[in-house]
Amino acid sequence: MVRKPTPEDKFSFGLWTVGWNAQDTFGSATRPWLDPVRSVHELAELGASHVTFHDDDVVPFGSDDTERERILDAFRKALSDTGVTVEMVTTNTFSHPIFKDGAFTSNDRRVRRYALRKILRNVDLAASLDASTFVMWGGREGYEYDSAKDLKAAHDRYAEGIDTVAAYIKEKGYGLRIALEPKPNEPRGDILLPTIGHAIALIDTLENGDIVGLNPEVGHEQMAGLNYTYGIAQALWANKLFHIDLNGQKSIKYDQDLVFGHGELFSAFATVDLIENGFPGGGPTYDGPRHFDYKPSRTEDEQGVWDSAAANMATYILLKERAAAFRADPEVQAALETAGVLSLSQPTLNEGESIADFLADTSAYEDVDVDAVGARGFGFVKLNQLALEHLLGARG
Amino acid sequence: MVRKPTPEDKFSFGLWTVGWNAQDTFGSATRPWLDPVRSVHELAELGASHVTFHDDDVVPFGSDDTERERILDAFRKALSDTGVTVEMVTTNTFSHPIFKDGAFTSNDRRVRRYALRKILRNVDLAASLDASTFVMWGGREGYEYDSAKDLKAAHDRYAEGIDTVAAYIKEKGYGLRIALEPKPNEPRGDILLPTIGHAIALIDTLENGDIVGLNPEVGHEQMAGLNYTYGIAQALWANKLFHIDLNGQKSIKYDQDLVFGHGELFSAFATVDLIENGFPGGGPTYDGPRHFDYKPSRTEDEQGVWDSAAANMATYILLKERAAAFRADPEVQAALETAGVLSLSQPTLNEGESIADFLADTSAYEDVDVDAVGARGFGFVKLNQLALEHLLGARG
Amino acid sequence: MVRKPTPEDKFSFGLWTVGWNAQDTFGSATRPWLDPVRSVHELAELGASHVTFHDDDVVPFGSDDTERERILDAFRKALSDTGVTVEMVTTNTFSHPIFKDGAFTSNDRRVRRYALRKILRNVDLAASLDASTFVMWGGREGYEYDSAKDLKAAHDRYAEGIDTVAAYIKEKGYGLRIALEPKPNEPRGDILLPTIGHAIALIDTLENGDIVGLNPEVGHEQMAGLNYTYGIAQALWANKLFHIDLNGQKSIKYDQDLVFGHGELFSAFATVDLIENGFPGGGPTYDGPRHFDYKPSRTEDEQGVWDSAAANMATYILLKERAAAFRADPEVQAALETAGVLSLSQPTLNEGESIADFLADTSAYEDVDVDAVGARGFGFVKLNQLALEHLLGARG
Amino acid sequence: MVRKPTPEDKFSFGLWTVGWNAQDTFGSATRPWLDPVRSVHELAELGASHVTFHDDDVVPFGSDDTERERILDAFRKALSDTGVTVEMVTTNTFSHPIFKDGAFTSNDRRVRRYALRKILRNVDLAASLDASTFVMWGGREGYEYDSAKDLKAAHDRYAEGIDTVAAYIKEKGYGLRIALEPKPNEPRGDILLPTIGHAIALIDTLENGDIVGLNPEVGHEQMAGLNYTYGIAQALWANKLFHIDLNGQKSIKYDQDLVFGHGELFSAFATVDLIENGFPGGGPTYDGPRHFDYKPSRTEDEQGVWDSAAANMATYILLKERAAAFRADPEVQAALETAGVLSLSQPTLNEGESIADFLADTSAYEDVDVDAVGARGFGFVKLNQLALEHLLGARG
Repeated sequence: MVRKPTPEDKFSFGLWTVGWNAQDTFGSATRPWLDPVRSVHELAELGASHVTFHDDDVVPFGSDDTERERILDAFRKALSDTGVTVEMVTTNTFSHPIFKDGAFTSNDRRVRRYALRKILRNVDLAASLDASTFVMWGGREGYEYDSAKDLKAAHDRYAEGIDTVAAYIKEKGYGLRIALEPKPNEPRGDILLPTIGHAIALIDTLENGDIVGLNPEVGHEQMAGLNYTYGIAQALWANKLFHIDLNGQKSIKYDQDLVFGHGELFSAFATVDLIENGFPGGGPTYDGPRHFDYKPSRTEDEQGVWDSAAANMATYILLKERAAAFRADPEVQAALETAGVLSLSQPTLNEGESIADFLADTSAYEDVDVDAVGARGFGFVKLNQLALEHLLGARG
Repeated sequence: MVRKPTPEDKFSFGLWTVGWNAQDTFGSATRPWLDPVRSVHELAELGASHVTFHDDDVVPFGSDDTERERILDAFRKALSDTGVTVEMVTTNTFSHPIFKDGAFTSNDRRVRRYALRKILRNVDLAASLDASTFVMWGGREGYEYDSAKDLKAAHDRYAEGIDTVAAYIKEKGYGLRIALEPKPNEPRGDILLPTIGHAIALIDTLENGDIVGLNPEVGHEQMAGLNYTYGIAQALWANKLFHIDLNGQKSIKYDQDLVFGHGELFSAFATVDLIENGFPGGGPTYDGPRHFDYKPSRTEDEQGVWDSAAANMATYILLKERAAAFRADPEVQAALETAGVLSLSQPTLNEGESIADFLADTSAYEDVDVDAVGARGFGFVKLNQLALEHLLGARG
Repeated sequence: MVRKPTPEDKFSFGLWTVGWNAQDTFGSATRPWLDPVRSVHELAELGASHVTFHDDDVVPFGSDDTERERILDAFRKALSDTGVTVEMVTTNTFSHPIFKDGAFTSNDRRVRRYALRKILRNVDLAASLDASTFVMWGGREGYEYDSAKDLKAAHDRYAEGIDTVAAYIKEKGYGLRIALEPKPNEPRGDILLPTIGHAIALIDTLENGDIVGLNPEVGHEQMAGLNYTYGIAQALWANKLFHIDLNGQKSIKYDQDLVFGHGELFSAFATVDLIENGFPGGGPTYDGPRHFDYKPSRTEDEQGVWDSAAANMATYILLKERAAAFRADPEVQAALETAGVLSLSQPTLNEGESIADFLADTSAYEDVDVDAVGARGFGFVKLNQLALEHLLGARG
Repeated sequence: MVRKPTPEDKFSFGLWTVGWNAQDTFGSATRPWLDPVRSVHELAELGASHVTFHDDDVVPFGSDDTERERILDAFRKALSDTGVTVEMVTTNTFSHPIFKDGAFTSNDRRVRRYALRKILRNVDLAASLDASTFVMWGGREGYEYDSAKDLKAAHDRYAEGIDTVAAYIKEKGYGLRIALEPKPNEPRGDILLPTIGHAIALIDTLENGDIVGLNPEVGHEQMAGLNYTYGIAQALWANKLFHIDLNGQKSIKYDQDLVFGHGELFSAFATVDLIENGFPGGGPTYDGPRHFDYKPSRTEDEQGVWDSAAANMATYILLKERAAAFRADPEVQAALETAGVLSLSQPTLNEGESIADFLADTSAYEDVDVDAVGARGFGFVKLNQLALEHLLGARG
């Protein structure tokens, strides 16, 4: 059986995950939205340490100030009663019709201004709750038709919006960092900043980019057929992995938001191995919450909701144990050696070697026996089989 | 009928395109490799102005210096006889077994050094032929299994390799810029720098990144389900669109390298519209060659090869004419207006507006009638139908 | 400009298409549901000849008998006022929570029986409206997890359900044929009968399969990366193409339901060419309605809805004209000849040739000059370029 | 550690798998082709019981009769020395240029006749080696351009070809059954009979279809985003699962042919569970060889080849053990019960219930409390988590 989660596991859940009413494009709700207070208590019971939310998850869109305060008080009480903390807050700029063409990049400037205000207001709330991360998923920042968007202007506006929020955070002295969440499509035909790479490239242009990073989601990268572990590795390398969204997706199709590990399991193992154990040769690490952003299937009742929440954590714990054993296995270390994995950290040029020196080194080119070097077997399949057998708990 | 290409069209072809022997993973060659001299003459005849090549396309791998010079002399003569120029050169670091685990990021350091030398040697050739762009497609820089690559080290080595080549170009004073070519997969399970975004993000970390940009290929982005026009738009916005590879791909599958327009035709129209007419609201433009990187289908004989080369240019010319008419149509201008496309260039904040001013503007938030704003119809479908009818030559 | 639709065009629309309230998984409705009476009048005005609907589109789920009759009376009046006819009816067995695990294949037998009754009731309505086709889209017949469904039992139940409906139609003597609508996924992780092929294979096992065929949708096949024209061609070959759903989809992603032609335009041309002009060498043809099953984008207001409806028809008309010109062009005929397209109708064995005769024919094997035959160029690219230029209206 | 394979495991390998020279579209061979005699001995040593091959894998294309006999003698000796048997034979109708537009459906009738003869000749060889299955993968039966193929004629020719081979088998009294292998694309843009469903639908039209079934390959279905276990389940249900090709694929991309389990591992578990344990409620089973059709990665040397062969079998054995434990677990049985999986075998109509009876049963419709029934939780996520934990060896 799987051990219970502990605070060291740093598990975190979006309130919109367990709370979801299971309405989709083709059908109506099969469950009521859950009261956030209720969710906080249940998640605490299951072993989660943190929660996260969109403004509208806790305070319904359009609530007046009195109502808002009443709701927030109850919510704060649930937090203090359970010891659960809010580590991240995000803003819903995609559900209301006003955002149908996006928020920061809507072709309607009234919407752009409205969205910016909605977000700034929520930054205050995030700070007041001592959240450390402010996620921005631009789910409607996109288009269905190429002629519908001036893509130069759209990038300008996207950058302006993010930079303004970052500037506000700095002005206020809040302890918040922004994390962008890329997604290739759905609910728009094409979404701006479709992958981790595109988002980093935009961040690099910002004035306040130092406090802007990423919140990559497993399924979003996989919807583009990309390798999630690769994506967060490049984000780590760029010092931009600020937060993560763990869930499951099976191949390239609609956004499934399955339980973590219920999609591509072998890939989930690699993800946990990187998060927990770092790069084989060392380098930047991720120390933030292990945050689940999934949807309990529409076929489940409330018991199924809590079972699914628990399943995310149980799977993560199992993969963490298996990854530790994988790294500790001397046979694995030998296979990594044979495969040259550990030697890739060595620079291509020698220390202090100039290009002229390098060009003069006949051992680098003229004297290379290309057939002999080309015949080397890397043993990658054997190494992968070792990983598979560790994942299956079949070694030792 | 379609008009003939002219030098103003700036059409360019890779010699490996028409020259390809049509061997694939499942079958042997159906045509001989074509002599580059022959290809230069034929392409000139068809109306192309430029050619491009991998080192090994012109001088077979392993040729000695005498043979190399003999071949290059004949090639230079073909260029001067036809007036065709070499605008881009690239290096083959993917075909020979030595590169089976990559070049700059091979787990074998001997390979990394060999690859760097092979590339530097080819930079000299590129410069001697007055090419302006040096493309790097890292087709084997990748992996099939997550444990097979230290991804932090891999990014370090990739960056080191590119930076060294860029430094060499600067040292030598060559008039060359480097253009990276992203691809998500094939022939490796996952390829490093899988999309335009990931490549820009890496370039942003380079010491000599000022002379490093992109050579995005239509099919490569589409293999990740991404919108090519979007990709080159972000590259333009980042001032990194140094070169383009035009071809055709149908949906997410193996790399098809079809004739330009023989894949997603409507998307090709948007691409040509952007390249020829720029962003609706102005901004950076692409003025380089219109370069085709495609493969004549394996079912074709040599006549089919030349027909396919001509087809690329004919399609481009047609789309260019249709895109010009699209932009010039007053009804289109009106629809762009209705859709708010042109207003997206207007910043979200007013000129000089501070965040404090903005927060105090109740017209931006408190006084917004969200239902009224949300009810706006953007007319995107009508605009797209206008595009479709212009593409089909059905208007005017 | 594009000519107006006529009754000969046989255009038909689902009432749920223009009527859709634009609610999706990530956002609330941006338009009200349209009154079917209104839609019938507007569609008639635009040139459509037929409408189709799910039971719940016209009569809300749970309406009592009086309300039902009142609504149906108004609907019948709209039909008779406009001359629009109902050519197809279908049943909603996917929206209500009761169908969350499917209808005919729900793991809950109460649901299976309820669904069958709901469908039979709707068959009566379809017959009373003189519809000729009864579509069944099993949108929730599926699963997310392999262990959740006994796939042998599921196929048994699916077959039982369809066969019972077909038997009922025969018992009643209704002039209806059933058309199954395959879809690979969404809203379920995997949907039973994911493609045209799988559906035909199931139909072949039915007792009453003679009145059961297909209603293939463009986007559904493309969501599996399959070629829609191929799919309907195999359905035609099997005499099972009973109805079609035309719309647009861009690559493999969530179900987009774009306007016909606003997805893969070149592929749409091939579809229209097959529907209008048949197979090059003759064979079964499709003579039914040209039915559009699309969703006006969520960004559109009601004007945008009607513009999008008109766009479907305008595009179809344009493609029909272009396909006619394509087939009539002598150069195309010559290219078809060169490509051997027309000779594929000739059987491989000679008339009356036994296997023994064939084995004795050395000209078939022993004497074949494989290199010479292998060197034949088919000219497929040239033929495709002719298609492209006809599509673009660039020839003659 | 994993136990050694035994004959009861029925493991089988294609000689083209371990024998592959690792040449692909983008690079040359990294290993020599292996001598089949050598492969037979090594595979026997590793625990395989059977081998399979294409004609050209054993006897090179174009060998004369003497050479052919010499080679076959050596091959037969290897079989008898090792006790390995040939359970399946297949024909290469895709590598040689003559097949560039297909074999049975080439637009060139000379090719169609040549292919038929090549296949019939190979049927004789298969029979002489006591193979029980004759696989047909029509890898080049397809097209890149819609106008290039008369799809009605193509289906006619495909059916004619298969039916003729089946008739020949019957005439000769051979103990062979034909198994078609579907694939959606690559090396052609679209391949005829792209999925399991399409292939069954064609078989249903054959005169000799009783001895024609399927050989579905894991990766081929997954290249269309389809669920392999679903596919073989429908084939089993149709009594058409004659053979299987096990391997690994990651998402929708080029054909990867990874080791079984090195792709979608959780899906591989479901596949093994179905093959070994059958449908939960009983039904047709698969008793044939567990056949691996994979490619040792191009990065591997010969040791890597044998390691990868062993990895296929080790993974299968592990999954088989885990699937047995999964089925035997009382908690799993309880979860299947809760989920209604076992009750799906119960027909929707009562025994002997007529449609009239059913319509009269108000408990089936009029009296159903749809909200109550709709509120049922199926517990699918919990059931799936039990599967995951069994797969990981984390229970008991």
